[in-house]
Amino acid sequence: MYSFKNDYSEGAHPRILNALVDANLEQSEGYGQDRYTKKAVELLKQKIGLCDIDIHLFSGGTQTNLTALSAFLRPHEAIIAPNTGHILVHETGAIEATGHKIISIEVGNGKINTTDIKVALDTHIDEHMVKPKLVYISNPTEIGSIYTKSELEQISRFCKQKNLYLYIDGARLGSALCSEENDLQLSDLGVLADAFYIGGTKNGALLGEALVICSDLLKEDFRFHMKQKGALMAKGSILGIQFQELFRDNLYFVLAKHANAMANLLKNALSNEGYQFLTHSPTNQLFPVLPNWLIEKLQEKYSFYIWTDVDAEHSAIRLVTSWATKEAAVFAFIKDLKLYITSRVC
Amino acid sequence: MYSFKNDYSEGAHPRILNALVDANLEQSEGYGQDRYTKKAVELLKQKIGLCDIDIHLFSGGTQTNLTALSAFLRPHEAIIAPNTGHILVHETGAIEATGHKIISIEVGNGKINTTDIKVALDTHIDEHMVKPKLVYISNPTEIGSIYTKSELEQISRFCKQKNLYLYIDGARLGSALCSEENDLQLSDLGVLADAFYIGGTKNGALLGEALVICSDLLKEDFRFHMKQKGALMAKGSILGIQFQELFRDNLYFVLAKHANAMANLLKNALSNEGYQFLTHSPTNQLFPVLPNWLIEKLQEKYSFYIWTDVDAEHSAIRLVTSWATKEAAVFAFIKDLKLYITSRVC
Amino acid sequence: MYSFKNDYSEGAHPRILNALVDANLEQSEGYGQDRYTKKAVELLKQKIGLCDIDIHLFSGGTQTNLTALSAFLRPHEAIIAPNTGHILVHETGAIEATGHKIISIEVGNGKINTTDIKVALDTHIDEHMVKPKLVYISNPTEIGSIYTKSELEQISRFCKQKNLYLYIDGARLGSALCSEENDLQLSDLGVLADAFYIGGTKNGALLGEALVICSDLLKEDFRFHMKQKGALMAKGSILGIQFQELFRDNLYFVLAKHANAMANLLKNALSNEGYQFLTHSPTNQLFPVLPNWLIEKLQEKYSFYIWTDVDAEHSAIRLVTSWATKEAAVFAFIKDLKLYITSRVC
Amino acid sequence: MYSFKNDYSEGAHPRILNALVDANLEQSEGYGQDRYTKKAVELLKQKIGLCDIDIHLFSGGTQTNLTALSAFLRPHEAIIAPNTGHILVHETGAIEATGHKIISIEVGNGKINTTDIKVALDTHIDEHMVKPKLVYISNPTEIGSIYTKSELEQISRFCKQKNLYLYIDGARLGSALCSEENDLQLSDLGVLADAFYIGGTKNGALLGEALVICSDLLKEDFRFHMKQKGALMAKGSILGIQFQELFRDNLYFVLAKHANAMANLLKNALSNEGYQFLTHSPTNQLFPVLPNWLIEKLQEKYSFYIWTDVDAEHSAIRLVTSWATKEAAVFAFIKDLKLYITSRVC
Repeated sequence: MYSFKNDYSEGAHPRILNALVDANLEQSEGYGQDRYTKKAVELLKQKIGLCDIDIHLFSGGTQTNLTALSAFLRPHEAIIAPNTGHILVHETGAIEATGHKIISIEVGNGKINTTDIKVALDTHIDEHMVKPKLVYISNPTEIGSIYTKSELEQISRFCKQKNLYLYIDGARLGSALCSEENDLQLSDLGVLADAFYIGGTKNGALLGEALVICSDLLKEDFRFHMKQKGALMAKGSILGIQFQELFRDNLYFVLAKHANAMANLLKNALSNEGYQFLTHSPTNQLFPVLPNWLIEKLQEKYSFYIWTDVDAEHSAIRLVTSWATKEAAVFAFIKDLKLYITSRVC
Repeated sequence: MYSFKNDYSEGAHPRILNALVDANLEQSEGYGQDRYTKKAVELLKQKIGLCDIDIHLFSGGTQTNLTALSAFLRPHEAIIAPNTGHILVHETGAIEATGHKIISIEVGNGKINTTDIKVALDTHIDEHMVKPKLVYISNPTEIGSIYTKSELEQISRFCKQKNLYLYIDGARLGSALCSEENDLQLSDLGVLADAFYIGGTKNGALLGEALVICSDLLKEDFRFHMKQKGALMAKGSILGIQFQELFRDNLYFVLAKHANAMANLLKNALSNEGYQFLTHSPTNQLFPVLPNWLIEKLQEKYSFYIWTDVDAEHSAIRLVTSWATKEAAVFAFIKDLKLYITSRVC
Repeated sequence: MYSFKNDYSEGAHPRILNALVDANLEQSEGYGQDRYTKKAVELLKQKIGLCDIDIHLFSGGTQTNLTALSAFLRPHEAIIAPNTGHILVHETGAIEATGHKIISIEVGNGKINTTDIKVALDTHIDEHMVKPKLVYISNPTEIGSIYTKSELEQISRFCKQKNLYLYIDGARLGSALCSEENDLQLSDLGVLADAFYIGGTKNGALLGEALVICSDLLKEDFRFHMKQKGALMAKGSILGIQFQELFRDNLYFVLAKHANAMANLLKNALSNEGYQFLTHSPTNQLFPVLPNWLIEKLQEKYSFYIWTDVDAEHSAIRLVTSWATKEAAVFAFIKDLKLYITSRVC
Repeated sequence: MYSFKNDYSEGAHPRILNALVDANLEQSEGYGQDRYTKKAVELLKQKIGLCDIDIHLFSGGTQTNLTALSAFLRPHEAIIAPNTGHILVHETGAIEATGHKIISIEVGNGKINTTDIKVALDTHIDEHMVKPKLVYISNPTEIGSIYTKSELEQISRFCKQKNLYLYIDGARLGSALCSEENDLQLSDLGVLADAFYIGGTKNGALLGEALVICSDLLKEDFRFHMKQKGALMAKGSILGIQFQELFRDNLYFVLAKHANAMANLLKNALSNEGYQFLTHSPTNQLFPVLPNWLIEKLQEKYSFYIWTDVDAEHSAIRLVTSWATKEAAVFAFIKDLKLYITSRVC
């Protein structure tokens, strides 16, 4: 059974694994102070186009979010996030466990705008309420949508005006930046966000996320917070080795483009059959609305999540592609899809 | 320059890396629910000799300690630990950050005994003080010493009597269990401790620690705590693959024995030259007391930590060996040592 | 200027203050272990009609909520609360600061029902999300509505079925229990809730809330949690003295009835003039919708909160009465109201 | 039985209670924004001799400590305190519950010095350890000793040099400042400390502690932290009324002098009988070492804590006096003491 469940089903891209093998028996400094990590940080700074940023490597996304956000905020400060935000829904209260409230903003397409943020500010006015201090967004969002450069500029400008930090969760950042509809560049993020992270786990690495801290206010003593939250890996070089490999040429973007291309094949095939999508996603997650009988047929050969009921006879499913998704598997899926539809009609 | 600084300088044992390569392109379930992790858990249960235990794989030791201890305790409950305990000294307040006080017990040799624990209980008597609820020990301790079976049985019995949990930090458990002076077996730990962990990172793995929960009281909902603390890895299979490889035969113990053997070579050579040790360590960490001039000479070719001053002319250094320590490097060190001593004398 | 801003504008009922004066120079045990506190607990148990409950006295409502809820829950467990809940809106993230997420349920009238709770359970299904464990409600709610006995029985039954705790915030419990529309008794709460508190500060006391813990599961070591959260008062007897005075006869209920009667006078007068109310409140908080010009006139002589805009020309205000509200002041308010309306018409 | 157990056995000084009665039925703003609190703050600023300080009133000492210290520190920052410090021993881990480690410094007389602080700094050197950021001391200490002006100046200077905050717990500050051996003034504290609190509960108030924040760095948003920790009282005016009464003339100091005078009578009597004291205390807590038979006799008519065993036949007890201690009771105690001794001898 072929899986379209998520983009962390396989291990690492072979080049990543080769790099790990090559460096395996050399001795390195521990806890991220090795030469590979230094080189990876160097490369990332070049790609982002800024020197005065701090970069720290983590083993996972929830860990990155909880370490960064709890380090950035004072106890009474809160986070504003869209209601679909990963930290709100799928991190088991990791942020609240560090003591901070997240103010949820109801949005339709996974994206927050300055009007939404203003409402949160206007309803938190005195010391009987938490003080909103940081805006959390994801790009792409948890439902596959992406921010345009103009949208992000507006949010960034508004945050600066209101003395709010802007943080971007980039668990699938590669897919956003390589989307056909995207007009943002990695270098824009360094200017627009106070901090953001570049996801490796879902784009070719065995594990690894690179947190980029742009605002000077957020840099001090950051490694203390990492250690306290269990995020400083003893063999930190294995993160450095992977990010070095992903960014020493364009591997990171090549992999993301492949994931998007595979998603596009699926999207076109589903559209051609007349199916709608729950959300407009130009990235590697698709949410087609299918008849339940078809979903059941597809489940015989493919695994994926059923996202939500739509009506008595239809549900939205989630299909995720990745750097490792095989074109042949996509074509097989499309072929089966057409076959099931035709058989049913007859 | 050859490093004796620690046992996480290199990557993974080649067999571990081969196993990762072999499984790399297969699709697996995420978050530790893959077949490799299931198999690894199975193997560990067999080695420990108990079926009704829960085993969870983590990426690092601090993360294991903070997730487990905060999951096990209610807010007012505290931990009793020897003053050298890793959680007290080298985890940046990770445990306190989860809300719990650690009661420090001054000990000479890194090991706590029932008399020490009793003092802590006797001085914490009402609701104006924290309630001691868990005893934390490490085996081997942070200064290389190990607990005998009889010592551990006494502590375990006392803890049960006093309604305390017993938790063993096994970051270097392999070295303890393979020490020539050891009379404990892995299966003893399952009976004596309420929870303990088997360290992989420092004994051949790229990363990975296996937490074993023996007491039924501590098992419920444990994966929620892992997720909340950022400890559930998306690609959890990479932990399962490594522990499967370490325990499908005796690799874990073979590696630990090598580390101990290399330490023994160093120990004998240093003893033969008449040097004393700060602590009695039958494991892979040695703390020889050397003249400062000799330390300076050795530092020209070898890297290691200077642990503490002893007097105006002597310091204790820390030498750590591992599965990856080369016999040739040890012999070279010994040869250089002798050479420096002879040259000085002449 | 007379204030209808809240029910904590004045000090204590004179009988309370007299009781404090009478006991002032006697020596008492500290930290709530004095004879007054014991007697107050005794009296409350009689009024509630249960012996096997634990009662603890606190100095304020937020402190009671944060101490109780953090003591009752494990780190991954969450609270379900209506979106108007005091802990969600007006306690500066006090609950999140203890590490717990609150799942907000959108409700119209301040009251939650079993359908709402079920939705929260159905959308929190695995370890990637918090585990709902406690339902928080207020009676009366923050917008003045009250629960019927039947409604509370349904919630209580559902919570027991689903292994959820039921906690009732009774900051204004007196007003709810003395409402003309109420069919609940203090003794019902002891049976239906796992814990609840009886508010003193807003009903005659200088300060003081009595937390009642009914479920055996929640009782253990509770005084440790109080001390840890700064809630054990050195001169705890001053809380005992007040609750003894409030409950040695029916003073507590007499005071609440007065507050409700004063609210009723206002309510009838406003209704007679044809004004609507934002919510149906049979308790001591009213939310009349008035034309803005009238609000401005009233503000010249009376202070109160403007609750929310209703349309371009109308707003809802909040009028709160208490045990200390003077009938003469209420009549003056009504007289002025009529006067302003007549003047405007002419 | 007369109690020398502590200085919070009685209620408030009659003048305090009268002030509460006088203001009782006036309407005030809630949450500490009333005119009494404003006036009290004004008076305290005058007594301290500084305008640019912030003052906040709390209901108890543990609450003051935990709110202030958690507001002042970032997550990885730790507190240095003498091992007898109240926050270390008698607050049920309240500080750790907010996430911060306390570094305990072993001292003989309850007082810390710059050498002690330096050791703590020198042993906390990198991100694997917490970062010491605040020095906590009490004046008087928990064992009755007091700091001289010169000692405090040295500590203050050292803290400024090392970028550490200095915080003084003044639960019994009146007794320290009114001690015959004292050379410090209230105005010195405003200059030397970054924050300190003036205890009311143990010196005449029904409840109340006044936190003084001197350093600008620590002032921002402080009321948010108070609310979050449950420390903003709805009827905050009752704290303001009490501090106004204590400081509108010299009542606060008159009461502390009385407590010290009563302690002096006891001290002289005990010394005259040849007894030693566990600590040198020039304040209202005494720790005489008495034969166990005498302690038993005294316990028949007086209550007090047995502090610690000294040898098989002697123990130290704690005798505490207060503003409310009756001279007649002290004389009776002394008379009985002499009587028991004489009887025994005969």
